[in-house]
Amino acid sequence: MKRTVDVCFSPDLLHLYDLEDKVVVVVDILRATSCMTTAIAHGVKSITPVASLEECEILKMKGLLAAAERDGQIAEGFDMGNSPFSYMDETIGGKELAVTTTNGTLAITKSKNAIQVLIGSFLNISTLAEYLLNEPHNVLILCAGWKGKFNLEDTIFAGALAKRLCTEFKEACDAPLAAITLYEAAKDDMIGFLANSSHVKRLQRLDIHKDIDFCLQEDIYPVIPVLKKGKLVKMKLKRQLEITRL
Amino acid sequence: MKRTVDVCFSPDLLHLYDLEDKVVVVVDILRATSCMTTAIAHGVKSITPVASLEECEILKMKGLLAAAERDGQIAEGFDMGNSPFSYMDETIGGKELAVTTTNGTLAITKSKNAIQVLIGSFLNISTLAEYLLNEPHNVLILCAGWKGKFNLEDTIFAGALAKRLCTEFKEACDAPLAAITLYEAAKDDMIGFLANSSHVKRLQRLDIHKDIDFCLQEDIYPVIPVLKKGKLVKMKLKRQLEITRL
Repeated sequence: MKRTVDVCFSPDLLHLYDLEDKVVVVVDILRATSCMTTAIAHGVKSITPVASLEECEILKMKGLLAAAERDGQIAEGFDMGNSPFSYMDETIGGKELAVTTTNGTLAITKSKNAIQVLIGSFLNISTLAEYLLNEPHNVLILCAGWKGKFNLEDTIFAGALAKRLCTEFKEACDAPLAAITLYEAAKDDMIGFLANSSHVKRLQRLDIHKDIDFCLQEDIYPVIPVLKKGKLVKMKLKRQLEITRL
Repeated sequence: MKRTVDVCFSPDLLHLYDLEDKVVVVVDILRATSCMTTAIAHGVKSITPVASLEECEILKMKGLLAAAERDGQIAEGFDMGNSPFSYMDETIGGKELAVTTTNGTLAITKSKNAIQVLIGSFLNISTLAEYLLNEPHNVLILCAGWKGKFNLEDTIFAGALAKRLCTEFKEACDAPLAAITLYEAAKDDMIGFLANSSHVKRLQRLDIHKDIDFCLQEDIYPVIPVLKKGKLVKMKLKRQLEITRL
């Protein structure tokens, strides 16, 4: 029997899904999970996702490098926010990070009862698809959304990943079918398709086109961040995939 | 400034929306809101939507005609279920109905704080669109979904209605944009597009193709059921629209 791939459009709907037989892929394309993929690829030792600014502040005081974003901007009192370009500096190699963002980190902490929690982004999509195709588990792609609401960029990623899995998986319900249809409609001009989306408009007001363009690129980093004891670390892959463009 | 049209994909996400400045259109295409439209068009005096079988049983004992559906079938102890063909009998004219269904009635009872709660289906889509275009309020289309989860047929209807409103309304967030894209992908072959959807598969097992075909037809009944003091009644329209096909 085929395994199932499902998509949950919001952390506020996660209570409807049984996580115990599933690997959860958490997605917050703009920009939390794109940043986490970038940071792990640049040698960060671990990333501790926390839901609140207060928890992040405590970890900062304990000596962790702390990044905090609210509503698209760096939260007051923190040095780093949610731009992938902040995580390309070689000096972050080996460091331990604490991160809180508006949507993505809550989605991760809510998923902790799953078999495994992985971080997904366009930047590591092929590595992720190959890993999931070779594992025996059902998959749930959890879109971080925007403050509980549906968003387009996470859904399009979910469709792109579900489509890559469909040789070995069947869609568990209507959400993956919808996500695949939306991905098909978007794929030839992702930036154009997303131009009217609420989050891209929000980010454009903050003048971070460069971040958006970067986060929509496929296969830049052949890494998978995985949650181990509350921290995201680099998964040891059986074989290093040769799928990066850079 | 343009009014906004928004789409909520599940009653479990309704807490994220402020209903006080909105007209809510509740949608459960297969089949609750299609049945309600059919029943009101056939002269039913009122429909009392209730969330539980127990409440429905109590209203039955008080002399109301009671219809109850769970998981696609007539619930035990009730005479009517959720097929639109049950509501075309002329003997129901003037009767008071009590109805409970798996998804649709809960969506209605959850919406009661809105300015107005209307019932939407393909059967009355043009009448509904014309009414909304001529009212001053923001619109939220609430998809009943399936036990809290996203479903395709309600979303496609939401897209069809949002598209008809877009001359006068702007999309409030990503959900109406997604719904419109899905409607565009589905519109030329709605039955084919929905063939893989989970609810259509569920209903096909129950052998009710005839219900599905009926519920996907546009503009059969030029009526709008509206919630007044806990009961759905026929809205008095300023002018009777000439848009039915029959």
